[in-house]
Amino acid sequence: MTSTETPVDNGVNTEFLLTARDMLTAQPEGAQFTWRVTNTWVKGTHSRTSVDGFFGLGAEQKHRADYQFDGDHPELFAAEDNGPTPVEMLLVSLASCLTAGVAAVAQNREIQLKSVAATLEGDMDVRGILGADPEVRNGFNRIKVTYKIDADASPEDIRALVAQSQKRSAVYDIVTNPVNVVVEVN
Amino acid sequence: MTSTETPVDNGVNTEFLLTARDMLTAQPEGAQFTWRVTNTWVKGTHSRTSVDGFFGLGAEQKHRADYQFDGDHPELFAAEDNGPTPVEMLLVSLASCLTAGVAAVAQNREIQLKSVAATLEGDMDVRGILGADPEVRNGFNRIKVTYKIDADASPEDIRALVAQSQKRSAVYDIVTNPVNVVVEVN
Repeated sequence: MTSTETPVDNGVNTEFLLTARDMLTAQPEGAQFTWRVTNTWVKGTHSRTSVDGFFGLGAEQKHRADYQFDGDHPELFAAEDNGPTPVEMLLVSLASCLTAGVAAVAQNREIQLKSVAATLEGDMDVRGILGADPEVRNGFNRIKVTYKIDADASPEDIRALVAQSQKRSAVYDIVTNPVNVVVEVN
Repeated sequence: MTSTETPVDNGVNTEFLLTARDMLTAQPEGAQFTWRVTNTWVKGTHSRTSVDGFFGLGAEQKHRADYQFDGDHPELFAAEDNGPTPVEMLLVSLASCLTAGVAAVAQNREIQLKSVAATLEGDMDVRGILGADPEVRNGFNRIKVTYKIDADASPEDIRALVAQSQKRSAVYDIVTNPVNVVVEVN
C-alpha cells in the first residue's frame, strides 16, 4: 500500500469491536446479553412482534425505535398474507447476520467492499407442518445461501471472507446447531 | 354444546388446512416448497432484505406485497441501529410461528381465543461472536418463551395447545434441531 491510497472504509468500526473484545474478556459479566421480543396475536395466523430493547453491558438498552413486524401465513394457505411467513423471517435473520459479518470481516482484513448481494433459499416439505407424514420434518431440509460480492480482493480472499463470517455468525450457529428452547404458559 | 352457542372463530380456516393435508398426502410433489429472500448490503452492518415470492404447489407464488426489512447492529456496538439485530429477528420469526400455531390448533380443538401474548428472551454471551473465547458459542445459550393466553379453556387445555403448536412449528424445529446450510460465493 502507498500512503496516497484511500483507506478501506466499509462503515464498520472494527477498532471499537476489538476494544470491546478485550474489555469483555477482562469483564465477562458484561458480555451476558438477553435479546427480547414481545408478540401479540392479531387474528387467524396474523401476529405482531415488537423489538424495542435488550439487556447488555450490565444494563437495559433501548433501540432507536420500537421496531414492529407483522407475521402471517400466505393466501395459498387460506390466510391473509399480512406479512412474511415465519420461515421467511428466519431467512431474513440469517441473511442480515451473514452480511453484517461479511462487512465487519472485510473491514478487519482491509478489503474494500463495493457491493454485496445474497439470495437465500430454504427447501421445505410442508407435509411436515401439516402433520401429513411423521417422517417429514417441520423445518427446512436445507438452506442454500448464494453470495455475489464485488470487492477489491481476489476470488479466493472473498470466499475466505464469507467463510469467516459464517464462523462468527450468531444466527448461522443457531440454525446449524441445536438451541434449547423452554416454553412456559402463565 | 347447545345449538345457540356461538361457533368458535379464531380466524383460521382449519377445514382448508385439513383438505390441503389430504391433497398433499396424495400428491407429495406439491408439498415441496422453496422459501426465498434476497439481501443487499447497505453500509457497515446495515443490510436490507426483501421477501416477495416463493415456490409452492408446483408454481411460483407472489406475496401481496414486497416486504422489506432492515437489519443492523445496535449503537452499543458502534453501529447505527437502522433495524433490529439479526438475533432479534430470529426471535420475531419464532414468535410468529408459535403464535400462528396456537391459533390454528385452538381452532381445530374448538377453543375460542380471547388474547395471546408472548415474550421471548434469548440469552447470549457475546464473547462468542467477538471471538474472545473459543469455548463460547456464537448463538443463544437458550431461548425462553412465556405465553399469556386468555381463552375459553382450562389451564391444562391451554398448555396442551401451546405444546401442540411447538410440535408442528417449522421455526421451533429449525432452532432446536440442526439444519444443513450451504453457502456459495459466485
